[in-house]
Amino acid sequence: MSFLRQYRRYAAPDLTRYLPFIVEGHHVGWVKPEVAATLAKDPAAFVVTADRVTMHPDLVTPEARSAAMARTLARLRAEGRVPGWRDELYPVNQAFGETPLLVMERAAAPLFGVLAYGVNLNGFVGRGWEMKVWVARRAPTKSVDPNMLDLIVGGGQPLGLSPAENLLKECHEEAGIPTEIAARAEPVGLITLLIEAGEGLRVGQQFNFDLELPVSFRPLNQDGEVAGFELIPVSELMHRLRSADEFMYDIALVLIDFLIRHGFIGPEEPDYLPLIAGLRRPIPFQRVPA
Amino acid sequence: MSFLRQYRRYAAPDLTRYLPFIVEGHHVGWVKPEVAATLAKDPAAFVVTADRVTMHPDLVTPEARSAAMARTLARLRAEGRVPGWRDELYPVNQAFGETPLLVMERAAAPLFGVLAYGVNLNGFVGRGWEMKVWVARRAPTKSVDPNMLDLIVGGGQPLGLSPAENLLKECHEEAGIPTEIAARAEPVGLITLLIEAGEGLRVGQQFNFDLELPVSFRPLNQDGEVAGFELIPVSELMHRLRSADEFMYDIALVLIDFLIRHGFIGPEEPDYLPLIAGLRRPIPFQRVPA
Repeated sequence: MSFLRQYRRYAAPDLTRYLPFIVEGHHVGWVKPEVAATLAKDPAAFVVTADRVTMHPDLVTPEARSAAMARTLARLRAEGRVPGWRDELYPVNQAFGETPLLVMERAAAPLFGVLAYGVNLNGFVGRGWEMKVWVARRAPTKSVDPNMLDLIVGGGQPLGLSPAENLLKECHEEAGIPTEIAARAEPVGLITLLIEAGEGLRVGQQFNFDLELPVSFRPLNQDGEVAGFELIPVSELMHRLRSADEFMYDIALVLIDFLIRHGFIGPEEPDYLPLIAGLRRPIPFQRVPA
Repeated sequence: MSFLRQYRRYAAPDLTRYLPFIVEGHHVGWVKPEVAATLAKDPAAFVVTADRVTMHPDLVTPEARSAAMARTLARLRAEGRVPGWRDELYPVNQAFGETPLLVMERAAAPLFGVLAYGVNLNGFVGRGWEMKVWVARRAPTKSVDPNMLDLIVGGGQPLGLSPAENLLKECHEEAGIPTEIAARAEPVGLITLLIEAGEGLRVGQQFNFDLELPVSFRPLNQDGEVAGFELIPVSELMHRLRSADEFMYDIALVLIDFLIRHGFIGPEEPDYLPLIAGLRRPIPFQRVPA
């Protein structure tokens, strides 16, 4: 089986079936028509027309927009439309590092199809075909993808931390990696996501790091979100990515990127080019007509 | 200065100013109108209309198309339109590994805007900020980019060899790297090119490899195409990529990809995202209307 099976687990979204979500003249997301219909019930917050959903132009500051969004999301949450509420605020913008146009609850990002940022760590021991990769089994209580396989460390990218700072924090919380070891992690690029999930559109940009761990290191979860850890030989990891869907969708992509960067998947792989192209699909924010 | 200076050395091509080049119903390149006008003088080989250049549909085999192309290119060469003739045949197709629709002289690839494949080697010693990267100064006699800085090893991807086999051959010819060392090179992904150069459109896909060389190794060019080699500390390499245009355009991109994969350019770099996106721009072959 081809590694491409991991890319095919979700349909490529048909963006023509969504309405662009516009804030201050910037296209920052995509909303399903049925979500747009309920947003239309908050006319002070959203202007819903046949071809777009716009945050009300009277909301001229990020604070005013964030407050209006929070009121609407409280209602949608009460209606059961925002599963897995996290009490984590994410910035909404077109590109990482830009001043947020507003902030909103992380769990509602797919409802609005806004770009969500994250960090991931590929933690491994050994080199070449002797390499083994640490993976985590997600706790059965996780709201997203319970029991699936995950990286040893990863998480959403909150406001106020750099990706490297966030990674250090997650290394501690998720796997008990001491700061002096975690600080050796190296940034190695990013992947993008654009998939239609049950709840809406998942649009993502995730910063990836590699860390060669000491052979003696054993991860120890601190936050109760992990059921256990496993150290998988790289050849077995490749077999499992080719033959089954045990890993979270985005994590499978991060691992394929890792396998490509480390030479385990090379030009002799028939799908080398589509595998590489599929890791960083452009996020097609449109120019907004006046 | 930003590393993005390297991406801005050539204008992004305006593809609407080219005619699509169509072979057997496949869009495989782009031709300037003035080139199309001279191709129209070979009506047995090319059908030139207002919106496209098509290889004549009576040429039903790759052999027939390759022979017709060779006749036309011999004329264009005599007219001085194909600088740097190399006597190397390149396959023409939409994706690497597909059966070639025809083969044609490498030096004419930009005239037809067809996809040209290549291999590159990042040869380095040391790790972390102690790392140094081997680079080559191109011989003043090279037809393309004489005297500019290049990788220690790189070259076009000919028919009949895999990228890994081609790399071994180039490692010997260009830098005298013994096969037992060169065989340790690891594939690490690819970059794409899409730029308007003087002679036409350069469309490329290059397979990249990394090789940690022994500290004692000294490159020795075998084919006379290199004026000399230099071992550059990674911090100096970064300074030179930010501040000057000493490297060939595509090589600057390969080095930026290397610096990103090895953590020297990270998310704290303001242009991290456009730098990564610019390394693998999609090649926008169009669907051909019937």
